[in-house]
Amino acid sequence: MTRTSLDHHNCSFARTIDILGDRWSLMILRDAFYGVQRFSKFKERLGITQAVLSARLAHLVQQEILERKVNDDGGATQAYLLTPKGKALFPVMVSLMQWGDDWIHAGMGPPIILEDKASGATIDKLQVTLNGQAVALRNISFATGPGASDATQAAVANARSRG
Amino acid sequence: MTRTSLDHHNCSFARTIDILGDRWSLMILRDAFYGVQRFSKFKERLGITQAVLSARLAHLVQQEILERKVNDDGGATQAYLLTPKGKALFPVMVSLMQWGDDWIHAGMGPPIILEDKASGATIDKLQVTLNGQAVALRNISFATGPGASDATQAAVANARSRG
Repeated sequence: MTRTSLDHHNCSFARTIDILGDRWSLMILRDAFYGVQRFSKFKERLGITQAVLSARLAHLVQQEILERKVNDDGGATQAYLLTPKGKALFPVMVSLMQWGDDWIHAGMGPPIILEDKASGATIDKLQVTLNGQAVALRNISFATGPGASDATQAAVANARSRG
Repeated sequence: MTRTSLDHHNCSFARTIDILGDRWSLMILRDAFYGVQRFSKFKERLGITQAVLSARLAHLVQQEILERKVNDDGGATQAYLLTPKGKALFPVMVSLMQWGDDWIHAGMGPPIILEDKASGATIDKLQVTLNGQAVALRNISFATGPGASDATQAAVANARSRG
């Protein structure tokens, strides 16, 4: 697969997309969040080739999003588990699913509901907040943070001067 | 570009990935959230070919995530604006950026900060909540919703029986 790396961008979004921005990595992660752990199970659920699945799993392990655990049966089976870095993608997964619920499945209602195990209550709709209160996109501005390069500082200054 | 459609999946996540799961669509949307509107500006910022940019913009317009607006100068310039469906991706964009801030840029601090225009305060970290309280992944279970197909119902029942 030929692709241009986005890693040179001084931007957390671009670097995240560089790691996650392919369909199969995201679909594998979806299944990992559902509790799928074994190669054969990923393969069966996603209907992808062994080569593609192997490559994508190796990529996610290399990025420390999944870790490979060899079971006690002498290596005959192995499990792919979410690491802390992988589990931290939970809001990403939920935001993608909820957007689909709202904008693609609007007529039918959601196929899958995420609920609290103890109470069975449905989790909240994710929203961007400030001190717990929803903030609309029009009330947001972009500023440079401590990790900004000179180019990023110039780009943000340029965007701000446009009003 | 050859790719397998994920549209047959009875899953909001899969259908969202089917629409958004390519790097350039996501990078174009990032720039649209930053306020970029013109073809030439997207091209300059992203460094992609005219053909790829045209195709990705047409895709996002067709999906009603962006809308094309021809300016009053007889069509010499046109703007690509986020629709309500596009603006609803705000939590998706923020979650991807914040994950990168935490897990890729950890040492340097974030390059870009999203703040409230009025107060200059930084927006909250997105989290999955129930009645406003954070819920950990381990306390979440998956249930079928009104839009679940028979296959989805069977898959969820199967996942639940595994404990």
